[in-house]
Amino acid sequence: MFHKLLIANRGEIAVRIERACAEMGIRSVAVYTDPDRFALHVKRADEAYFIGDAPLAGYLDARRLVDLACETGCDAIHPGYGFLAESADFAALCAEAGIAFIGPDAKVIARMTDKVRSRRLMQDAGIPVTPGTLTELSSLDEALVQAEDIGYPVMLKAVAGGGGRGIRRCESAEQLGKIWEWVVAEAGSHFGSEAVFLEKCIVDAQHIEVQVLADRHGGVIHLFERDCSIQRHNRKLLEIAPCPRLTPEQRAYVGMLAMRAAQVVGYENAGTVEFLVRGNEIYFMEMNTRIQVEHTVTEAVTGVDIVCEQIRIAAGHKLSFRQEDIRHHGYALQFRINAEDPRNDFLPSFGRITRYYAPGGPGVRTDTAIYTGYQIPPYFGVLCLKLIVWGMTWEETLNRGIRALNDMRLQGIKTNAALFEAILRHPDFRSGNFDTGFVASRPELLNYSAKRNPEEVALAIAAAIAAHAGL
Amino acid sequence: MFHKLLIANRGEIAVRIERACAEMGIRSVAVYTDPDRFALHVKRADEAYFIGDAPLAGYLDARRLVDLACETGCDAIHPGYGFLAESADFAALCAEAGIAFIGPDAKVIARMTDKVRSRRLMQDAGIPVTPGTLTELSSLDEALVQAEDIGYPVMLKAVAGGGGRGIRRCESAEQLGKIWEWVVAEAGSHFGSEAVFLEKCIVDAQHIEVQVLADRHGGVIHLFERDCSIQRHNRKLLEIAPCPRLTPEQRAYVGMLAMRAAQVVGYENAGTVEFLVRGNEIYFMEMNTRIQVEHTVTEAVTGVDIVCEQIRIAAGHKLSFRQEDIRHHGYALQFRINAEDPRNDFLPSFGRITRYYAPGGPGVRTDTAIYTGYQIPPYFGVLCLKLIVWGMTWEETLNRGIRALNDMRLQGIKTNAALFEAILRHPDFRSGNFDTGFVASRPELLNYSAKRNPEEVALAIAAAIAAHAGL
Repeated sequence: MFHKLLIANRGEIAVRIERACAEMGIRSVAVYTDPDRFALHVKRADEAYFIGDAPLAGYLDARRLVDLACETGCDAIHPGYGFLAESADFAALCAEAGIAFIGPDAKVIARMTDKVRSRRLMQDAGIPVTPGTLTELSSLDEALVQAEDIGYPVMLKAVAGGGGRGIRRCESAEQLGKIWEWVVAEAGSHFGSEAVFLEKCIVDAQHIEVQVLADRHGGVIHLFERDCSIQRHNRKLLEIAPCPRLTPEQRAYVGMLAMRAAQVVGYENAGTVEFLVRGNEIYFMEMNTRIQVEHTVTEAVTGVDIVCEQIRIAAGHKLSFRQEDIRHHGYALQFRINAEDPRNDFLPSFGRITRYYAPGGPGVRTDTAIYTGYQIPPYFGVLCLKLIVWGMTWEETLNRGIRALNDMRLQGIKTNAALFEAILRHPDFRSGNFDTGFVASRPELLNYSAKRNPEEVALAIAAAIAAHAGL
Repeated sequence: MFHKLLIANRGEIAVRIERACAEMGIRSVAVYTDPDRFALHVKRADEAYFIGDAPLAGYLDARRLVDLACETGCDAIHPGYGFLAESADFAALCAEAGIAFIGPDAKVIARMTDKVRSRRLMQDAGIPVTPGTLTELSSLDEALVQAEDIGYPVMLKAVAGGGGRGIRRCESAEQLGKIWEWVVAEAGSHFGSEAVFLEKCIVDAQHIEVQVLADRHGGVIHLFERDCSIQRHNRKLLEIAPCPRLTPEQRAYVGMLAMRAAQVVGYENAGTVEFLVRGNEIYFMEMNTRIQVEHTVTEAVTGVDIVCEQIRIAAGHKLSFRQEDIRHHGYALQFRINAEDPRNDFLPSFGRITRYYAPGGPGVRTDTAIYTGYQIPPYFGVLCLKLIVWGMTWEETLNRGIRALNDMRLQGIKTNAALFEAILRHPDFRSGNFDTGFVASRPELLNYSAKRNPEEVALAIAAAIAAHAGL
């Protein structure tokens, strides 16, 4: 097993990996840039190294991170998600330096992060892919011809995209013409490649993804699926395991497809195969070659510690489980509590956490790097806390979710927490009747009355009385 | 279902019951005495009522609590554990007032809290009881004769005792003579009855208890067992579910015995049947007719929300589960984090919590009523936080336990947290080789080096530098 592991990341996922290291007896090494001097992932690591004043550059500097790992005597690097997690170059640099990269081989990453290439690979292997182009588009003219063929609406997507960026829906040729330049430019600036392709837009579909684990000895298993249909602007908001609407036959089928996908590309480590599902139609969308933000709900229903298993796989161990050892129990939900204001067009709400008190009791898990007094830096995205709830039945899980949201105290910033309560109370969500259009088509979800907790109300009343009395 | 439920308790168990109410859509009503004005169970309840300046009297005033429930429109009372939880009079007063008592019938409580009577009942039903007297002892002379018959060592116990009080081990007639008056007096002052009895002291035994659930329609199931052998002075410190050393046959046998015990006494609601187990010898010890502090570990391995199920049963519902629906997965540990100093003879360490940060991540649960800034009142016992960890294997559970203990920040008071790490690292504990004498026979468990977290160390260094520099 490894002795010392460098975490090439920050925030809650760095803390998550530190916890796995602590449980496995591996020394954890954190890195941080200037805005993260007081970050929890720095405080909780066994060692921490400063990697520069610029907020982002250090986390993206593959060469420097690999050198630091060598200098500090690390034998492994965990990339987390985001930053360099899907960088084939980073994986290759690690391999050259003799450092174990906790993820698949560089060649596999390159194969799967090129969405056009992975679509071809999957189609060749007999896995159904969403109708669309199997090569990069060379021009708007070609795009217009292809779109006519596919049929509107279509999705124009960056070949190297992800995380809800470099993706736009087009209802018509006119609209495609208008957004073409914009999407190409966003692809170039965000992902370093202007290549784009077209996919048929499958409306009213569910976003289903299967967690797979593969070792270097030919072992491949899946940990069932997650439903990530609750999205806003193609960004996931709330994830569910397992999908409440999937039949056992569909579950077995997507599980088999995902394992086949992993085998076809010679996959090793944890990965996620994403599908669009509408009724009996199931289409491969893409494969993510890293740990995902929402791995927690799979952990809750299967009991498998996916991060620990990632580390064991990278150390050359065989999988700890056979497929028949894996069962799913109950349901789990993850709420991505973001520092943003849903009632003000989801404007980021960076600021100082004046009070954070974690929810507790049965079936509740939190993964976060915030604490009372923490100043959320404006450079790294809005996710500030993952709240995960588990229940034995769908109804218990929903009720526990609402309870846990109300149990939590998070003050000083605006968050989307109340939006989740609105979703969980919505009859369509409760009955399992939701797809990727759920949030967009229900503007009433934002009409919740802004709740204030009793302490805030008491303070406001006291302030008003004091003002009135001229105190 | 009930509309409004009064919680006749305080601290973490009151918060636990409030969470169950929130998930079930029942309005929760808290009560509090003067030292609890700023208690979390008051802040988190839907309504809260002051019941007097004296710290304890209000929580023990059965008449007043029932009247308050009536006045505030409650249709149910949950007694929690301790205080009036095993008071047959309280249950009877509730019944008279038409308020549902969340627990068994007053007659059943009376039958089982009289330990001599319950031993007779069990023996008559064919359930093996620890060798000892089946009637109260009338005098020291009778005790000496009986003890000779049973064989030393013996336990002298209060008939109405519990919680580690009113119980003493005697190695010889001389010792029995010496402690007799003392135990009789403690029984009288703590439990309102001077009645005592004798039991054979089963040395090197495990304390195993089975969680049962029974409805009023004849349904009885068990949720497997807990191992509570890790004790100090007959008080539980650390609880485990399931018992790692029990064979499947023993597990099935104690489960059957516990269900039989519940049926014999016409039990309704949640209860715990406690046994002493040594090899193949299994003896009934007592039955607790209430929710227990350690119910959490059973919830972790079975997924059943025992408090919600208690409330449903009291509302007349049938059990939500059949025996064959109940499985146990993995292992769970509960650490009773007490405000006490293990290195100073476990002296209570009441004071102000200057910082509390809950541990998080996979497989971790906290149940507590503390928060940063909370002043622990000196009137209610030392339990300040229950930390529960779950893991798929025994080893994962142990490693996660150590990780979670280190993950937690709890400052301003002394606690026994480091003692748990010492227990979890002990090879005998790890190999499952422990019994009720484990802690007493290993004084080295207290030789851990007092750990300080890095922030405290940094502050200490800064203070020393400042002092040295004359700042």
